[in-house]
Formats: sequence, structure tokens, C-alpha cells
Amino acid sequence: MFSKIAIIGSGNVGCWLYHVLTQKLAPQTVIESVPARDLSRLTSDADLYIFTVKDDFYEEVLQKIPFRMPMAAHTSGSLPQEILAPYTQNYGVFYPFQTISKSLLEQQYFPEVPLCIEGNNEQTTQQLLSLAHTVSDAVYPMNSEQRQQLHLAAVFASNFSNALFNMAKKILGGSGIPFEILYSLIDQTVAKIKVMCPADAQTGPAQREDHSIMQKHVAQLDEEQLKKIYQLMSEYIIEQKKKKE
Amino acid sequence: MFSKIAIIGSGNVGCWLYHVLTQKLAPQTVIESVPARDLSRLTSDADLYIFTVKDDFYEEVLQKIPFRMPMAAHTSGSLPQEILAPYTQNYGVFYPFQTISKSLLEQQYFPEVPLCIEGNNEQTTQQLLSLAHTVSDAVYPMNSEQRQQLHLAAVFASNFSNALFNMAKKILGGSGIPFEILYSLIDQTVAKIKVMCPADAQTGPAQREDHSIMQKHVAQLDEEQLKKIYQLMSEYIIEQKKKKE
Repeated sequence: MFSKIAIIGSGNVGCWLYHVLTQKLAPQTVIESVPARDLSRLTSDADLYIFTVKDDFYEEVLQKIPFRMPMAAHTSGSLPQEILAPYTQNYGVFYPFQTISKSLLEQQYFPEVPLCIEGNNEQTTQQLLSLAHTVSDAVYPMNSEQRQQLHLAAVFASNFSNALFNMAKKILGGSGIPFEILYSLIDQTVAKIKVMCPADAQTGPAQREDHSIMQKHVAQLDEEQLKKIYQLMSEYIIEQKKKKE
Repeated sequence: MFSKIAIIGSGNVGCWLYHVLTQKLAPQTVIESVPARDLSRLTSDADLYIFTVKDDFYEEVLQKIPFRMPMAAHTSGSLPQEILAPYTQNYGVFYPFQTISKSLLEQQYFPEVPLCIEGNNEQTTQQLLSLAHTVSDAVYPMNSEQRQQLHLAAVFASNFSNALFNMAKKILGGSGIPFEILYSLIDQTVAKIKVMCPADAQTGPAQREDHSIMQKHVAQLDEEQLKKIYQLMSEYIIEQKKKKE
């Protein structure tokens, strides 16, 4: 296994990875965290370099690495593994499929972060898979195309649903109703899709095609953007229902 | 307290209410379930009539009740309590704030369904509140305006997020990636908004204003409707971020 791993980048993913590798690997394994904007501390003696930088920033950071790396991985859901090819012979992907906020690391929300793994050759793939298994029980070998699909699905399932929760909070606004009243409903919404298909779990005015309520709701919203989102989401729900029938 | 309660309607809410009242009330309390489309079985000896029908259907059902009721409540998030005024002197609202599917009742997903209660006079309010407390620990006295705001917030937080989960499932489609891989991400998305404001929990390409990824994502989507939803949701996230800054 690896005796020294360098993590480049100290954003949400970088901090999480440092945190979890330090906890889970044998104490003799050295884990080093290096900020992407100051690579002066980066040494050439690691067996594995894991990059956790913004997608747009990868090229710039990689070009600054002053030595050829024995093995490197990136953590992006969207980039192909080949972006690492000019800098090492052994490269791959170590993509944590989770929404990570570094302020919450200590609270241990992550009993199991699914890790999506790819390598450019058998040995690299095996070594990254083996590292992944020490960190998580949910390890998925996955090619670039699959990873891109998954990343896109995640935007809908996580980023956009979080944005909806934000909209709901704003709608409650100054009504005197605490946001916490939504917790049980949201928990149940999530519990349902684990035992039935989301299409079968759909409820609400659009699912019932209750147009009078939908019109009232749109009138109640005071932001143009929210009105549009309401209409578009409702149209989607109605269309899906018709497709099912 | 009530000696006999009649529940009119046997949809999702009606079935749930029958289930939960039968479980939680003293065995000597009679709970009767009557389908809204066949009221011939409805007797005039109940102390409380709870209506659980579709919003559009209330007027029609109420007009068919062949006697004046001592007390009645509806279970709608959107209708004012006054729709019951022509049919009884004591009326109110018993609104379960939850997404309920009758097929899941037996699985006991509902340790605590928030109940939003309103009455047209002090005595009715107190009796409905007291009934609510026997069923749930999360009881909220709430006027019609608040209830409408809450219902609208619920559409965003629950109905629309469920629709997003459905979109995510379709995006994974034939990729060979199981839908289950999303569970941990969705759980974490929900866990985060309970410890921080959704605006602070926001992650993803729109939050990072990573336009190259967003463009790729839109190109990857093959349905016009999903492209529009992607763009609209992303614009919302970017705008909220700017407002915060």
C-alpha cells in the first residue's frame, strides 16, 4: 500500500479526504495536505498525489508540479482521468460522491461516502480501489462516462433539492412558522424513494392535476423566478404522470 | 373527548387518519371510515366528522350530508375553515403536514406527523388540539393564511424535490449505475439543512459559478424540459449567492 499520500487542495473535498485518510489509514502512513495556491511545500517522495481542486483550476495546478509523479488521482465528477496523463504514467479517479462542507467534518455525517474509482491501468485501478475500500464500504468502479452521468444526476438530486429547501424556507419567511416543521415531511419524502420508485411516490397538486390550487400557488409567490420554477416543475410532474398512465 | 369520530374519504389522508386514530385513541372510541362517493353508510351520531377529500370535491360532498353536524373539520392545506360554516356551528381544520401514501401505512414511517390545527371558536379549537395531541407530539395552532404558506412551502420542499429525485433516476437510466448510490448523498443533503441554513449548505457547479460544467451538463441532457429546469435552478442558485455576498 501507500506509505505517503499528498493531498493537493484544502477546500471541502481536500479537508474531508485529509480527515478521513488520517483516521482510517495505518498510523505509519504519512498524509500530507498542501494548499493548491502554494505548492512550495510539496515534496516528491509521495507514492500517490490526490488533487482536490476546482475543475477549472486543474490545468494550472498540474503544470506547476515540478516533478513527475509516480501515481496521481483527481476527485472531480466531471473531468476525464486523461487530464493527468501528461504528468504521470499511473493515473485515475477517486471521486467521493457526496456533498461535503468542511465546517461539518467533525460532526461525522459520513459513515459511508460512496467512492467512484477509475484507473488507467490494472495496477493503478487496484491500488485506488484498495485505498477506497479502507475509507468506505461503498466503492464503485466506474468509467468516465458513467461518472459524468452520476455527477449530473447528483446536481438534480442534491444541489437542486437543497435550492428547493431554500425556496421553502423563504416562502415560510415572516409567517411565524418555524422551518423545522418541514423536517418530518422532507425525511418522509426521502424515506419513500428508498422503498418505492420516485414516480410512484409523487404526491401534491400537480400530481392530482389540481389546477385551481396550482393557480393560487403561483399567484401567492411574489418572485418571478419562483413562479417559473413552480410552473416548470408542475408541468414535468403532470407529463411524467401522463407517460406512466 | 369524542365518543365517535367519522372519517369521510378513504384516500391517502383518510386511510392514514383511520389507521392512526384506531391505534392511538381509547378502544371505546368508535372510529368510522366512510367513502366520500358513497355516503349512505354515514350516521348522524358522531361527535366529530373529519373530511379527507380532494379540495375540488369538498363542496359536492358537504352538500350531500343529510343532517347538521355537531362538529366538523377538514384536512386540506389550502381551503379556509369557513367552507364548513354552512353545515355546522363548530368547525375547524385538522391538517396533517406530511406526504402520505396509503401503501406505506403499515411500515410506520410516521412517528410524528406535524398537525396544524384551527377552530372557529375556542371550544372547537381546544377539542381539535386535544385530539391532535393524542396523535402527535408536533401540534401547531395555525390560521388559514399561515397554513396556505406552509402548504406552498411543502410543494417546493417535498413534491418538487421528489420530482428532482425522479429526474436523477432517469438521468442514471441505462448507465448501469444503481439509483441506490444516490441515497447517501440525498441523506446528507437533508442532514445538512438541519444544522445549517440551506443557503449556507448550497454546493455544486452553480454555487461555484462553474459555467463550463453547467454548459456541459445542459448539453448532456436530452430532454428540453430538463435543460430548462437545469438552467432555471442554476440561475436561482447563482442569484441567491449574489444576494448573500
